[in-house]
Amino acid sequence: MGKKGIKIVTIGGGSSYTPEFVEGLIKRHKELPVRELWLVDIEKGKEKLEIVGNLAKRMVKKAGLPITIYTTFDRKEALKDADFVTTQMRVGLLEARIKDERIPLKHGMIGQETNGAGGLFKALRTIPVLLEIAEQMHELCPNAWLINFTNPAGIVTEAVMKYSQHKKIIGVCNVPINTKMTIATLLDVPPDQLTITFAGLNHMSYGLDVHVNGESRLNDVIDLVTDPNHEVTMKNIIPLPWEKAFMKALGCIPSPYHRYYYKTNEILQKELEEFKQGKTRAEVVKQLEDELFELYKDPDLDIKPPQLEKRGGAYYSDAACNLISSIYNDKGDVQTLNTRNEGAITNLPNDTVVEVNCVVTKQGPIPLAIGELPYSINGLIQQIKSFELVAIEAAVTGSYEQALLALCINPLITSDVKAKDILDEMLEAHKTDLPQFQ
Amino acid sequence: MGKKGIKIVTIGGGSSYTPEFVEGLIKRHKELPVRELWLVDIEKGKEKLEIVGNLAKRMVKKAGLPITIYTTFDRKEALKDADFVTTQMRVGLLEARIKDERIPLKHGMIGQETNGAGGLFKALRTIPVLLEIAEQMHELCPNAWLINFTNPAGIVTEAVMKYSQHKKIIGVCNVPINTKMTIATLLDVPPDQLTITFAGLNHMSYGLDVHVNGESRLNDVIDLVTDPNHEVTMKNIIPLPWEKAFMKALGCIPSPYHRYYYKTNEILQKELEEFKQGKTRAEVVKQLEDELFELYKDPDLDIKPPQLEKRGGAYYSDAACNLISSIYNDKGDVQTLNTRNEGAITNLPNDTVVEVNCVVTKQGPIPLAIGELPYSINGLIQQIKSFELVAIEAAVTGSYEQALLALCINPLITSDVKAKDILDEMLEAHKTDLPQFQ
Amino acid sequence: MGKKGIKIVTIGGGSSYTPEFVEGLIKRHKELPVRELWLVDIEKGKEKLEIVGNLAKRMVKKAGLPITIYTTFDRKEALKDADFVTTQMRVGLLEARIKDERIPLKHGMIGQETNGAGGLFKALRTIPVLLEIAEQMHELCPNAWLINFTNPAGIVTEAVMKYSQHKKIIGVCNVPINTKMTIATLLDVPPDQLTITFAGLNHMSYGLDVHVNGESRLNDVIDLVTDPNHEVTMKNIIPLPWEKAFMKALGCIPSPYHRYYYKTNEILQKELEEFKQGKTRAEVVKQLEDELFELYKDPDLDIKPPQLEKRGGAYYSDAACNLISSIYNDKGDVQTLNTRNEGAITNLPNDTVVEVNCVVTKQGPIPLAIGELPYSINGLIQQIKSFELVAIEAAVTGSYEQALLALCINPLITSDVKAKDILDEMLEAHKTDLPQFQ
Amino acid sequence: MGKKGIKIVTIGGGSSYTPEFVEGLIKRHKELPVRELWLVDIEKGKEKLEIVGNLAKRMVKKAGLPITIYTTFDRKEALKDADFVTTQMRVGLLEARIKDERIPLKHGMIGQETNGAGGLFKALRTIPVLLEIAEQMHELCPNAWLINFTNPAGIVTEAVMKYSQHKKIIGVCNVPINTKMTIATLLDVPPDQLTITFAGLNHMSYGLDVHVNGESRLNDVIDLVTDPNHEVTMKNIIPLPWEKAFMKALGCIPSPYHRYYYKTNEILQKELEEFKQGKTRAEVVKQLEDELFELYKDPDLDIKPPQLEKRGGAYYSDAACNLISSIYNDKGDVQTLNTRNEGAITNLPNDTVVEVNCVVTKQGPIPLAIGELPYSINGLIQQIKSFELVAIEAAVTGSYEQALLALCINPLITSDVKAKDILDEMLEAHKTDLPQFQ
Repeated sequence: MGKKGIKIVTIGGGSSYTPEFVEGLIKRHKELPVRELWLVDIEKGKEKLEIVGNLAKRMVKKAGLPITIYTTFDRKEALKDADFVTTQMRVGLLEARIKDERIPLKHGMIGQETNGAGGLFKALRTIPVLLEIAEQMHELCPNAWLINFTNPAGIVTEAVMKYSQHKKIIGVCNVPINTKMTIATLLDVPPDQLTITFAGLNHMSYGLDVHVNGESRLNDVIDLVTDPNHEVTMKNIIPLPWEKAFMKALGCIPSPYHRYYYKTNEILQKELEEFKQGKTRAEVVKQLEDELFELYKDPDLDIKPPQLEKRGGAYYSDAACNLISSIYNDKGDVQTLNTRNEGAITNLPNDTVVEVNCVVTKQGPIPLAIGELPYSINGLIQQIKSFELVAIEAAVTGSYEQALLALCINPLITSDVKAKDILDEMLEAHKTDLPQFQ
Repeated sequence: MGKKGIKIVTIGGGSSYTPEFVEGLIKRHKELPVRELWLVDIEKGKEKLEIVGNLAKRMVKKAGLPITIYTTFDRKEALKDADFVTTQMRVGLLEARIKDERIPLKHGMIGQETNGAGGLFKALRTIPVLLEIAEQMHELCPNAWLINFTNPAGIVTEAVMKYSQHKKIIGVCNVPINTKMTIATLLDVPPDQLTITFAGLNHMSYGLDVHVNGESRLNDVIDLVTDPNHEVTMKNIIPLPWEKAFMKALGCIPSPYHRYYYKTNEILQKELEEFKQGKTRAEVVKQLEDELFELYKDPDLDIKPPQLEKRGGAYYSDAACNLISSIYNDKGDVQTLNTRNEGAITNLPNDTVVEVNCVVTKQGPIPLAIGELPYSINGLIQQIKSFELVAIEAAVTGSYEQALLALCINPLITSDVKAKDILDEMLEAHKTDLPQFQ
Repeated sequence: MGKKGIKIVTIGGGSSYTPEFVEGLIKRHKELPVRELWLVDIEKGKEKLEIVGNLAKRMVKKAGLPITIYTTFDRKEALKDADFVTTQMRVGLLEARIKDERIPLKHGMIGQETNGAGGLFKALRTIPVLLEIAEQMHELCPNAWLINFTNPAGIVTEAVMKYSQHKKIIGVCNVPINTKMTIATLLDVPPDQLTITFAGLNHMSYGLDVHVNGESRLNDVIDLVTDPNHEVTMKNIIPLPWEKAFMKALGCIPSPYHRYYYKTNEILQKELEEFKQGKTRAEVVKQLEDELFELYKDPDLDIKPPQLEKRGGAYYSDAACNLISSIYNDKGDVQTLNTRNEGAITNLPNDTVVEVNCVVTKQGPIPLAIGELPYSINGLIQQIKSFELVAIEAAVTGSYEQALLALCINPLITSDVKAKDILDEMLEAHKTDLPQFQ
Repeated sequence: MGKKGIKIVTIGGGSSYTPEFVEGLIKRHKELPVRELWLVDIEKGKEKLEIVGNLAKRMVKKAGLPITIYTTFDRKEALKDADFVTTQMRVGLLEARIKDERIPLKHGMIGQETNGAGGLFKALRTIPVLLEIAEQMHELCPNAWLINFTNPAGIVTEAVMKYSQHKKIIGVCNVPINTKMTIATLLDVPPDQLTITFAGLNHMSYGLDVHVNGESRLNDVIDLVTDPNHEVTMKNIIPLPWEKAFMKALGCIPSPYHRYYYKTNEILQKELEEFKQGKTRAEVVKQLEDELFELYKDPDLDIKPPQLEKRGGAYYSDAACNLISSIYNDKGDVQTLNTRNEGAITNLPNDTVVEVNCVVTKQGPIPLAIGELPYSINGLIQQIKSFELVAIEAAVTGSYEQALLALCINPLITSDVKAKDILDEMLEAHKTDLPQFQ
């Protein structure tokens, strides 16, 4: 690390989430003395980058801290000698997400940002860009950690680990910290007395057990999350209640995203309604974003506006800042991260990326051993891992057949014939962002 | 083996398939000198047992062979000192199968004999009966092999291996031999020059490669099976064509049953039509069976009537007789069977049952090593294995929660809420055959 | 934990090490408020127990702390409602150790306390006693952790995990902390900035890497530990220097005990000399102990006497107290412990005990994932694990054949014929402590 | 295969074993119609090649068969369009073997052709030559199988599988067939009714079970092989008797080579005596060979002379010819071979070479699944596998450090210091045959 403080680079710096990240850095400045924050974006996002950059500068000024905010389109300039690089970009912007959600729905299949056909296309668009970033890091800041928030976070992280020379990448997601905060509230215990044994893949991890002060409270938590009076989900997932007897039989805490797999029918019905009304989640988010950027423009605004909460990224900043701080300060605390398995989950290969509890030090994350997954959840996790591996292959090679295979083996696509129709339509719709398929 | 010839016992002897089995034994009498064939059934199946028994006697008589046919309701009397026991019974008769298919469809889910909710209930009804048979064998004929044709053959075989003292059980299915015969015809080569590397689970196994005279012909076969001019399926599966590009990407030969998973949508639509017309496969089969038994009654009939072919059990007799003969004669040939994995498929536990190529000798089947499954198919196989393990747990314990869990994690049941509805209705409908759930 | 403070029970309380443990508890009383320390021993050790108990009382008194010291022969009384139980007993006392070392040497094989024939016999004598203690804990203090220092610590811990109902056991050894302290000194860095990635089995673990502030210093450490100017070993191991080129090729830090395996020849020569002079390590230790107890008797002594250091248990107290404190205080720090593998080392079964870095909280230790062992060290670790598993089998069943097998597959016993001679002589020599073999 | 018959190439054709191989081909000419046999050797072996070539021609002439014998130093000419290539060469000739055996003994360590330091050096000399042959095959006869008899057969086969483009290699050894023949004689049953479940590595495989007509006779065989009245070993291994109680505990049939590991002491004593008398096995063999070549020169000799039996290669010809014939004729019988594991032994990696029972067809050998090795034998097998992997690394890279590491982790080398002395002396002694180390 630079002696004079930390240099952080945020790719996709014009994101509406940036103010939250800046707020997190300000709050932690004592333990995490950031000197420079570089917000990098593409020319197409110029306006947003400026708005966000200016807000960030006002926030830092208000806090009275010696953090310099830079905005740039020149990624290589920004990366030079960085200590940490965070990625939160969205290749193709929200328009691409709208297509990811609407095209599958048009063919009667679930349309979702990180699952099913939408998730595949987000991976196909994102992986080549992230591989390029990683290669530039290998050259310009080889010791820097790449903190990847870009979805689908697990797939993208695995692609970089396998296909880039820059191996220092960690995939981060706010679902685990969100789940922990929600369950702490339900149990009425301070979060730091709560340990959830997360295991699985990104957006596909389960809480295998819940301990408070060394004692398992799993059964209590299952009772609470299946109580119709509590809504346990994320902002961007339709909050359908779980069947209590099923949860008891499952014997662990699902992710909000598991609804797509265990309640496919109901979710699809809801989404089809939204589709007809032009109110898919992507469309709703686009409107929220537009409103947010209007707020951000206000030259008197010098804090993160409370409206950002609706956007769905709760604790995103905490997840990012905690991780950076634990590495920087060699803390050795436990965080839930996406990293190489190395036997932590014995049912999965050592070299694949999993989402598990890790000890975080200057060496990066080291996963805690889980052992064997309960067989009742192993099947779905394996199926999604199969999909992920084929998706990475498709993204890296630009193979039409591998992309079709990825769709056909995804549990949310229930027809090889429709898979081909969806694939053809999406390849056309996203073609400017998929050079590898041309 | 008895010095005077082999004693075979067939549980579910009143089945319409029995004449095919008898024909197979007659054809092979030189290498497989059967002395006694005991057809065992339950009192409820008395009429059918008599009809089939008499036909069998006429067939043997016509062949001029010293095989004595016995019919009995006393299973223990039959099992005493048996050399081989084959099981082909259907607990709850065809009426139960009709429920297995119609109830899920009523709730909008695929209704099928060995997959999804229907498959679960067939397992729940069958496993306790087979465990009882296995225990009786342990006492009355401990050296006899249990040749299990009863579906779902893989699940049932695993249940016996894990929960019975009688470990000499082999699960047999006619899908692999059928596939082999079909592909031999498509390639126009004699079947004995063809080797298909089958790997997976029962009704869920893939042909990983196809060799003719030591050379791979896999690509040719993929071309042929996806050629719309060829219909490659089984009698009891709707013959929807495969998407060619998907098959090329998959890079191996699917089972006809894979249509339920890769073409769920299309199959469901077809089944819903049949459901409305009262023409589910079970209902069609019931009519076919009634017609067959009318034929069997004819006192002048002393051969297997050609109409039996429509029933869907092609090569069933060959699969059974070849297995028995290879054990009896210590042949050492290769057959595709359901047996303990022992590392043959490295992605699956050693103690689980898989469907793979095996060398068959007097020691029973020994699987040939496959290594790691291609990751593109591993996911689905793992998911079905998860389902199978939970299904066995449910069948053995009679646990409502485990049965619900089995349904919820099955890829053909796409809603935890509907899973519960289906479960409740099916438990009620089958309650006389599910004593463990009372 | 009791509200009024912690109750600790030390089995083998009359050990010469006890004053060190008491000192550790006194130093940490603020964070580890011990209320009662029960020193338990057998009647045969009455004199020692009294001497040590009185010294402990004087130490506590001098420190002015509210810790009550109890001495007793009634183990069950002591265990009642304990919070932590530590075991450091030596079944058969030092006389048994002398036999463990001298009898193999008489037959030309290495004689050592925890390796080879000596290690086997220590395991055979200790396991039944520890299983009895564990069962009593299950009844009298089911929530208490059994902190096992009794050697061979890995084997004994695994035996309890597999054969006792009381699963809360952790095996502790002072080799890892000793190695860490030594290397910190060699590198001239504070120990808390140093992380060694230990992996393997007890007395058979390697430092796979060494990090200071997130950077690997492995090569420097290999240079230092092979520098003939530095002596890196334990008090109880002959300090023969390592061949530098071999260590470089090995590419990791061996345990001092690895000398028995990589320098068998030289160690055996040295031991044979000691044997002739009646100065095996056991005999030397016996004399040291006698001297120590003379010191302990001094009614004016109220601190741990410095002479204890020579005895060889450096950091033993730190290892024990740190572990107890981390559990009690839910610290979440990393310690090197013997616990269930659970995939941490992918080459070894999940249910076997390994010595690896663990996060320690109120839940106990959770191992950090290592992944696959380098193949160059995997072989020896597997061989010792084979020995351990057979040794446990022999200890639990009292099978002569299993005990012989354990000897024959141990790399330090190089003859099946001599193995039998050694076995017969040792079974006779230890017979009063081996009731299971009678 | 050529229409006109098979072309076989034998590298190391001047070996004294060749007449046995020729005899085997003559006996099987009906099922294995060999057209051409090319005996290839190096110029240094000119005299032997001529002697053997002429004897082979006389043998074929006497048999009246249309087999043409060629002798050549031009390996590429010989390999062109070959169907099978067998390798039985000895890089450095018997002089090298004498060094392999005498130098370790000089330093007090076991000297043996395929184990310990001798085995390492044989591998170091042989692997580069075999890799060259394999590459030439890839170019000149890509469909031909390389039937490798060259020791250490397992290591050499694995090196080619991992480092050559020519993957069609099978390692063959006459120990399994020898063991089978011996046990058939002891049990007094025809060999074809006997099945031994071999599992492990070359010269390190165990018979896990023995079946006659489907029934286990393992216990009888253990009784017989430990009966001092029966000598069960190979010609080139000192026939020390096994300790009966140890064998019973081991519960499986060891290889004759296991004496080096379980009776290291006794073997070393015997070898040291031989060493002093100049009668190591290599020296004895050299004399036997000289005598044999004298016999071979006799222009009236036109059969394999019976004196060849003493040489130690019993059944070598049967092992080779059976394998070639099973591939050529697509037999599908079971043979014990060295091939890729692919899960057959679940304790070992899929991509490593193991010695197991295989089904042999035109596709080559496919191993039969073994499952998990008994833990009592797993350790030693793992240790030898570690050694093999490091040895291959050393052979391919010419790394001094890896070669030293291989010696230090080998269980027959009991000192890192002596390992270095032996290494230095052997590298010097063999330097003309170890270009990769210069």
